Amino acid sequence: MDHYFIIYSIYLELFIVYSVLYPAKAKSRRQRWEVKPSDMANNTLNPIRAIVDGMKLTPNPDKPMIALSIGDPTVFGNLPTDETVRQALKDAIDSEKYNGYAPSVGYLKSRQAVANFYSCPEAPLEAEDVILTSGCSQAIDLAISVLCNPGDNILVPCPGFSLYKTLAVSLGIEVKLYNLLPEKSWEADLQHMESLIDERTSCLIVTNPSNPCGSVFSKEHLQKILNVASRHCVPILADEIYTDLVRCTSPSMASLSSSVPILSCGGLAKRWLVPGWRMGWILIHDRNNIFGSEIRQGLVKLSQRILGACSVVQGALEGILNAPQSFYNNTISFLKSNSQICFNELSTVPGLTPIMPSGAMYLMVGIDMGHFPDFKNDVDFTEALVTEQSVFCLPASAFEFPNYFRIVVTVPEHLMVEACGRIREFCQRHYRPRSSDSSDSNDLDQ
Amino acid sequence: MDHYFIIYSIYLELFIVYSVLYPAKAKSRRQRWEVKPSDMANNTLNPIRAIVDGMKLTPNPDKPMIALSIGDPTVFGNLPTDETVRQALKDAIDSEKYNGYAPSVGYLKSRQAVANFYSCPEAPLEAEDVILTSGCSQAIDLAISVLCNPGDNILVPCPGFSLYKTLAVSLGIEVKLYNLLPEKSWEADLQHMESLIDERTSCLIVTNPSNPCGSVFSKEHLQKILNVASRHCVPILADEIYTDLVRCTSPSMASLSSSVPILSCGGLAKRWLVPGWRMGWILIHDRNNIFGSEIRQGLVKLSQRILGACSVVQGALEGILNAPQSFYNNTISFLKSNSQICFNELSTVPGLTPIMPSGAMYLMVGIDMGHFPDFKNDVDFTEALVTEQSVFCLPASAFEFPNYFRIVVTVPEHLMVEACGRIREFCQRHYRPRSSDSSDSNDLDQ
Repeated sequence: MDHYFIIYSIYLELFIVYSVLYPAKAKSRRQRWEVKPSDMANNTLNPIRAIVDGMKLTPNPDKPMIALSIGDPTVFGNLPTDETVRQALKDAIDSEKYNGYAPSVGYLKSRQAVANFYSCPEAPLEAEDVILTSGCSQAIDLAISVLCNPGDNILVPCPGFSLYKTLAVSLGIEVKLYNLLPEKSWEADLQHMESLIDERTSCLIVTNPSNPCGSVFSKEHLQKILNVASRHCVPILADEIYTDLVRCTSPSMASLSSSVPILSCGGLAKRWLVPGWRMGWILIHDRNNIFGSEIRQGLVKLSQRILGACSVVQGALEGILNAPQSFYNNTISFLKSNSQICFNELSTVPGLTPIMPSGAMYLMVGIDMGHFPDFKNDVDFTEALVTEQSVFCLPASAFEFPNYFRIVVTVPEHLMVEACGRIREFCQRHYRPRSSDSSDSNDLDQ
Repeated sequence: MDHYFIIYSIYLELFIVYSVLYPAKAKSRRQRWEVKPSDMANNTLNPIRAIVDGMKLTPNPDKPMIALSIGDPTVFGNLPTDETVRQALKDAIDSEKYNGYAPSVGYLKSRQAVANFYSCPEAPLEAEDVILTSGCSQAIDLAISVLCNPGDNILVPCPGFSLYKTLAVSLGIEVKLYNLLPEKSWEADLQHMESLIDERTSCLIVTNPSNPCGSVFSKEHLQKILNVASRHCVPILADEIYTDLVRCTSPSMASLSSSVPILSCGGLAKRWLVPGWRMGWILIHDRNNIFGSEIRQGLVKLSQRILGACSVVQGALEGILNAPQSFYNNTISFLKSNSQICFNELSTVPGLTPIMPSGAMYLMVGIDMGHFPDFKNDVDFTEALVTEQSVFCLPASAFEFPNYFRIVVTVPEHLMVEACGRIREFCQRHYRPRSSDSSDSNDLDQ
């Protein structure tokens, strides 16, 4: 009993001390300021920023900077949008019909315009299959948000656009990366993809054409991907924002399958060269009624959280979509020509392996790091390229694919040529034949 | 042992049966389509839709419909935006400078313009204190998202704007409603507010001027609210979207406190009469450095999920904010006059108690349900008002405040008068003196 009494006394004493330190006050309330960002804010990570912010980007003062890093076709001013696009927006303003709130999924007339534009016999679309969003980013956000719960996982291409991970991780959704194969023009490693699927896989993201690779999947390859999705009953989020920027025939995923439900995300950003206007959309392809009304209603509900795209841009949409074919053709032939110039130039640079793209506005370049002992990795390499040559390319570590870098090919032609020349100079300076490199390391043949 | 053997045998048999039914296949993968919306989608509920969708809204075919229900000042065409506002946007388009991606928190120049517009000696603002968003809805979304974790709670005014609940519940955040007092011109019940605060209270939402009440808090009342926040160390989300639509002096919350950290949400929607343009902002007031860099960085990170407002609207912002004072004055005097007409008309209608607003564009009307035995509640009442008189007002059950309805006073004057006349006719037809009403019920005096 004495024993218990001592323990009891100690507790009593602790209690008194506690009461003196924290006098009678509503116990359940905060007594000092302590405002911390939420887990969601802390978990919203931008892999590109994480890499780039850690780089020392100090250009060579003797050479003007050429940034081949920014996936925005408007930065150099050489790819303006078409006059019909601007005029459509000004007409929408002058009509004074589009200043009020649009429905959260967009004006019916504007949704109809998008449906008409993308509908095809193999994958017909009605207005109700289109949800307008604040840019393709919100389209991807809504698509992931409606399909996935925290604890679920999604399959994401590697290398791939970093936003998928940013969005998914902030929502507590796991990201599983499936490999794209540079030696097969960036086709997906289907076996790897399939091996990652489990019961919690709620969505397969397919980016076609690819950012950052600029690759375009063949019809046959798309069909194989659809087969994987079909076998394991996983719906597809098709990021098709670059679908109109291709130098070959490229069917939409939805046109190749009537059984796999697909949310196709797109927008005005690339084809119409106005990414800042924040006009995106989701095309709901569900001919087998697998999404059913539930997923559609889920998308409508989620769209009500912040509403969607700017109403005057919506009002202008029909006019914008009718921009002349010559406008698109000019953009595509410019990107083709610039890609060819860049590929040809870098193909003869020692230690580099450019991979010819056939779509989007990117070109990936492999770095044979064994030949560049001055640098630890692609981040080091591209950092030094800024320091010495004032040329900035994104290291593909930002896309979780080390030993590559990405070139944006929207830069004016003379800057493309100049930049490639500087990259050549840089590589020639740092290139070492492998034999001299391996002098102090083990002989690889052993 | 025999016992165990039998059990073992049963298990073995079950296993064999199972194996036959479900032959060797990757166990962990889905074998049939089963795509369901996420919990977040399911939990994104719009209380207004939930009420309105359940109503039978069949107008009287002999009377043209007058909708006093929609909080959009543009629907009747009598409140166009100013020519300078439209011209600023067209100039931004023609400049061709704003087609690309803006920074996720907005162009610095545009943030500076908003800072200049709202900065005052008591609550100074720099460009870095402003985050541009896709409408005030996204501002509120980001503010709640950065301050609150799932399981936290927020204090929300009742009656109040339904979006707070929609956003919070979808994020797993609990909503606690504090009462506004109609008999005190909708001041907050401070004791009730304070009683709700606990350790998980991460944000106090104050809507001033109020939607749906149209009330404007006095400086003294705002100070008392700030004292509550200060005593319990709870940051404030000040929804001040209607701050410029007032018929009295109305200080911002931030101008009254240097100690309580405040995220003030606003936008172009109301003062500039372009809600569809989706241009909102968060003003960060944190003179005591309680949010510190962490909350600011959290907001920046969250803004990167979908980027923010349309770039051309951002580019036009400086010009838009410079619209002439006469434009604002006209709007305010129209709203004042229409509110007065509506209040005067309904003040003499038996069974109704309108409450005169001094801001925003709403007027709340109490229904003495005891005098209207034909109807169960405000939803029934407003439904019948559509059926008989083709006048639609939102039942305040949509704001969790039964026995009231909300009138939007942006309708043209002749329609305001006509609508009030019809409401009078409706009430006169259904009004019963309380004595006759209580004939078959218990005597209230007993």
